[in-house]
Amino acid sequence: MRNDAPIGMFDSGIGGLTIAKALLERLPRESLRYVGDTAHMPYGDKSPERLKEYATGIARRLLDQGCKALVVACNSASSNALEEVRAVAGSEVPVIDVVHPVVEWAATHHPGGNLALIGTRATVQSGLYDTLMQRSGLKVESLATPLLASAIEEGFHNGTISHAVVEAYFSDGWANDKDALVLACTHYPLVMDDIRAQLPEGMAVLNAPSIVSLRVEEVLRERGLLSATDTATRRFEVTDFTQSFADGASHIMGEHVDLVEAAWPETT
Amino acid sequence: MRNDAPIGMFDSGIGGLTIAKALLERLPRESLRYVGDTAHMPYGDKSPERLKEYATGIARRLLDQGCKALVVACNSASSNALEEVRAVAGSEVPVIDVVHPVVEWAATHHPGGNLALIGTRATVQSGLYDTLMQRSGLKVESLATPLLASAIEEGFHNGTISHAVVEAYFSDGWANDKDALVLACTHYPLVMDDIRAQLPEGMAVLNAPSIVSLRVEEVLRERGLLSATDTATRRFEVTDFTQSFADGASHIMGEHVDLVEAAWPETT
Repeated sequence: MRNDAPIGMFDSGIGGLTIAKALLERLPRESLRYVGDTAHMPYGDKSPERLKEYATGIARRLLDQGCKALVVACNSASSNALEEVRAVAGSEVPVIDVVHPVVEWAATHHPGGNLALIGTRATVQSGLYDTLMQRSGLKVESLATPLLASAIEEGFHNGTISHAVVEAYFSDGWANDKDALVLACTHYPLVMDDIRAQLPEGMAVLNAPSIVSLRVEEVLRERGLLSATDTATRRFEVTDFTQSFADGASHIMGEHVDLVEAAWPETT
Repeated sequence: MRNDAPIGMFDSGIGGLTIAKALLERLPRESLRYVGDTAHMPYGDKSPERLKEYATGIARRLLDQGCKALVVACNSASSNALEEVRAVAGSEVPVIDVVHPVVEWAATHHPGGNLALIGTRATVQSGLYDTLMQRSGLKVESLATPLLASAIEEGFHNGTISHAVVEAYFSDGWANDKDALVLACTHYPLVMDDIRAQLPEGMAVLNAPSIVSLRVEEVLRERGLLSATDTATRRFEVTDFTQSFADGASHIMGEHVDLVEAAWPETT
């Protein structure tokens, strides 16, 4: 495996770009191939079987393009299809998900803690966070907030909507007595201000982009796969292009992103 | 074509069941094959190309099952793929959409009127309502409310969310000076009370299920295709099954619905 090969990353849509942005800030020499499966978005309401099918399909394509590592930048896919993606990748290509690093971070920084978690229905129903948290001596109360990822995609155009949705999900104060809140969806950091406004002052919010990008760096270093090139390239693809996604992608990355539709026969 | 053949109906998800319910109440002797394309839901954020592909794919399958008529129970598909579905159906099988009947109803009951319209992004951006309204001497101001269909699917479990979303979309009073509001998405009648609460008292709301089911009856009668059987059958399929959809389907129909996953190879 060449260390100047690209990192492959995918999500249900453009929310995973929160991970991409943090990763490229941390590792500016890395090349990236990003795929947002907008034809099947939102993943949060799909069945485990479909999520395995979509995730392994994209993983295969990224591997065909020579990616040296895969980042599953989606909690719904990480919670329901990680083993299947690992099986496709084999032992040569490390697969980094967004669940395990966050749980390990929580165990280190909030040992024995009582956590609140919000995520999609697919993520919460998978039970993966519960299992891993319990093994790490943590307690967790999870709330499925299935509309929030879509509200955030919409929020690029109308912030009052995502604000109203965040407020409705936290209105009964269920999270107020917890030690920290886990944002178990890569879209959620985009409404961090709205979320913080619903929480007690100073409550910690675990933010996957920084935690996961740190993990990617560790894994690449361990395997001698960190890039040293000055000619890193990036490609950002979606499986169904609309202008709304293009606008949102540039919004998240904080600079113009040339979003293109993936010319993949199997993405319908 | 046999008059005891089933009517085929499809939508992006289970929202189109609002049309199915009204149709079966009006025509209890009709057999129905309903398909909700939940694997690709929401249609409202898909590109016109994908909508044509999904809609014609489902139409072909319903025709293969011997349907005598097709009802496109989705505004996003009606606005972007109607000609393509008609081409697939041919002249023998009538295709009823949800846009034309509502515009004709508006022209009859609010002649020269100034209408407000809410719908998905795909519906509003297609411009079909604008074109048809203008031809009928009506004015219309349209607002894309892309989150509302998803909020309603979520609303089966948490009514505060759909309430908050409806409130946010109408909060600036943009619809208050209009003669009537068009609900240009088959999900929206499910939050009629929330919507009415945001409008001036007595303002008319055009409700597709009753208007479209009346049109289906007229078309079947004209063609001599009304069923006289006492052994009508119904099948309700989705392209991706989750318990949430099953619960929602029974909620909309007001009785238990045996929702099953369509065993169609092309629905991935």
